[in-house]
Amino acid sequence: MYKNLRVVPHMVFGRGSFNQLDDILRAYRTDEGSHVVYLIDAIHEHRPLIHRVPIHKNDLIILVNVDTEPKTSYVDELVQRVNEYSNRPPDAIIGLGGGSTLDLAKAVALMLTNPGSAADYQGWDLVKNPGITHIGIPTLAGTGAEISRTTVLTGPTRKLGINSDFTPFDQIIMDAELVEGVPTDQWFYTGMDCYIHNAEALAGSFINTFAQAYAEKSLDLCRDVYLGDDPEADDKLMVASYFGGMSIAYSQVGVAHALSYGLSFLLGTRHGVGNCIVFDQLDDYYGPYVEEFRRMMDKHNIQLPRGVTKDVDEAGMEKMIDVALGLEPLWQNALGPDWKSIMTREKVRALYERM
Amino acid sequence: MYKNLRVVPHMVFGRGSFNQLDDILRAYRTDEGSHVVYLIDAIHEHRPLIHRVPIHKNDLIILVNVDTEPKTSYVDELVQRVNEYSNRPPDAIIGLGGGSTLDLAKAVALMLTNPGSAADYQGWDLVKNPGITHIGIPTLAGTGAEISRTTVLTGPTRKLGINSDFTPFDQIIMDAELVEGVPTDQWFYTGMDCYIHNAEALAGSFINTFAQAYAEKSLDLCRDVYLGDDPEADDKLMVASYFGGMSIAYSQVGVAHALSYGLSFLLGTRHGVGNCIVFDQLDDYYGPYVEEFRRMMDKHNIQLPRGVTKDVDEAGMEKMIDVALGLEPLWQNALGPDWKSIMTREKVRALYERM
Repeated sequence: MYKNLRVVPHMVFGRGSFNQLDDILRAYRTDEGSHVVYLIDAIHEHRPLIHRVPIHKNDLIILVNVDTEPKTSYVDELVQRVNEYSNRPPDAIIGLGGGSTLDLAKAVALMLTNPGSAADYQGWDLVKNPGITHIGIPTLAGTGAEISRTTVLTGPTRKLGINSDFTPFDQIIMDAELVEGVPTDQWFYTGMDCYIHNAEALAGSFINTFAQAYAEKSLDLCRDVYLGDDPEADDKLMVASYFGGMSIAYSQVGVAHALSYGLSFLLGTRHGVGNCIVFDQLDDYYGPYVEEFRRMMDKHNIQLPRGVTKDVDEAGMEKMIDVALGLEPLWQNALGPDWKSIMTREKVRALYERM
Repeated sequence: MYKNLRVVPHMVFGRGSFNQLDDILRAYRTDEGSHVVYLIDAIHEHRPLIHRVPIHKNDLIILVNVDTEPKTSYVDELVQRVNEYSNRPPDAIIGLGGGSTLDLAKAVALMLTNPGSAADYQGWDLVKNPGITHIGIPTLAGTGAEISRTTVLTGPTRKLGINSDFTPFDQIIMDAELVEGVPTDQWFYTGMDCYIHNAEALAGSFINTFAQAYAEKSLDLCRDVYLGDDPEADDKLMVASYFGGMSIAYSQVGVAHALSYGLSFLLGTRHGVGNCIVFDQLDDYYGPYVEEFRRMMDKHNIQLPRGVTKDVDEAGMEKMIDVALGLEPLWQNALGPDWKSIMTREKVRALYERM
């Protein structure tokens, strides 16, 4: 039984294409009294981009705080704000920001039409109703959130995505101008999310010719961006992110993401840097990719945080291990059906202790 | 202004995935009395595949004749047959075959909900109403018809696609098992449609980073298939076709397709072989690609038809030139805004005379 992949059905790619947002929204606005909701990474509050957002009179802008990874409780809070703002549902939710903002937009769109808390839907195919139209506009490239069928959330007991056919955006706009000026560390860590997606897809057992083609090309583009001096680096990274996202959407991630989720759950480590901290310990699983990743770090003088787990107590360590080992499909992809005998709790602990 | 690309929103890829068709159709079947319409390449009439088609009691199977390129008059005839079969519209149209069959399925789905003749919609964005749900299942790989936003038809005065956001399939199934056993010539010519898509995309002025990534990867896959001895050739060609289709969907084809359309219009030349006959004369425009194409021909002992235009009279030659030069976007992509001064009628004539 092969996956019937839901793909983002409308996409625009090109420098300056953000200017087309108003036109695009016109097709979704129902009448004079209706509104759309923008979820915008608060980092843009004082940046020029926010003045280019095509706001109509009833529209609601919410600046979202993504200093931490998105939480289910934060999604619930945002849904409440949207519901309190108007007694009619918005015509669309627009996410403008990095992966966290995009994931919040996807989750809010789903939770406006599905009862309960976002935490109830962490898992695979638990969402029953299509969400409000949701549109994603990345201002960071690498996460694949623009194309993925998940929205990764930290809930009360675990970090796990809402994976469903209703999760992907209805429309994305990929404008490489929007990613200019990102600080080097953030640019690097976010791009490495994409690099690691590809490594995990290609080294995994769930790979197939379709996902492989996407991952290989995405990897080539990452190399141009992080090992070359490519004048089109921003554009290429945006395409790499889309391709990497398509690849894992038709295969799966692996060891790095599983361990990174544990780290984020307990310590609140941001996903991009968390992946890198983990990946740097995974020579046994992704050897050549880890070597190449270190060359990329060297070229851009990236200093990975060290000793991040040194103050974790025993209960914390156990919880991290639980969160990581709970991500069954990731381990199956990375290590095969016998993964439980390969990746013991002791081995996970040893890896975490080295980080 | 960048194109807002409509992408096929659901796709399955994998050997044996054809078996999931019945499951997939379940979501579209409305009630006991409803029906779907299968358009199946008549070549499958006595092949085992036809016995695997999941037929329910009211379903209609039409074996389509694709000995010639699809005509608008044939689309109109098929629409009439579907309308005469039942006074309610079908729940879905399923195309099972090569590019021509897929194009017929797309056109019939559109013409069941739009008045007039298919010929009225040849062009760009002339379709007003969404079509009936349409599902594409290629049994030949290379054309990109499974992913494209066009259905290429020969009308009373021209060969030109119905290009619209409603044209792409709602669902595709890419099962490489279905392309096994295709005769070498047909396998080669159909695959070269993909190779030429990539060459025309990459050499054209409409190219961008997104379309380029698809075309480059598709080209790599074509090389594995036609210059290597790849055990996964069928799977790779299927992915190459999808990637090539995505590339031209976000850029454009060029000289080869323009001239090939003229050839098909007048002589009924099948699209795949027509492209090859034309491409073999295009050293001036696609030099390194033409050389590589010839190496692929050599490896597979392909003998191109020669002298195909030798019996064309003056009126016929003029008409071929008209059809070819009428494809303005293709020439703009290939030769830039001054294409009219570069590609004169005399030059087109000289090219045709050499074929």
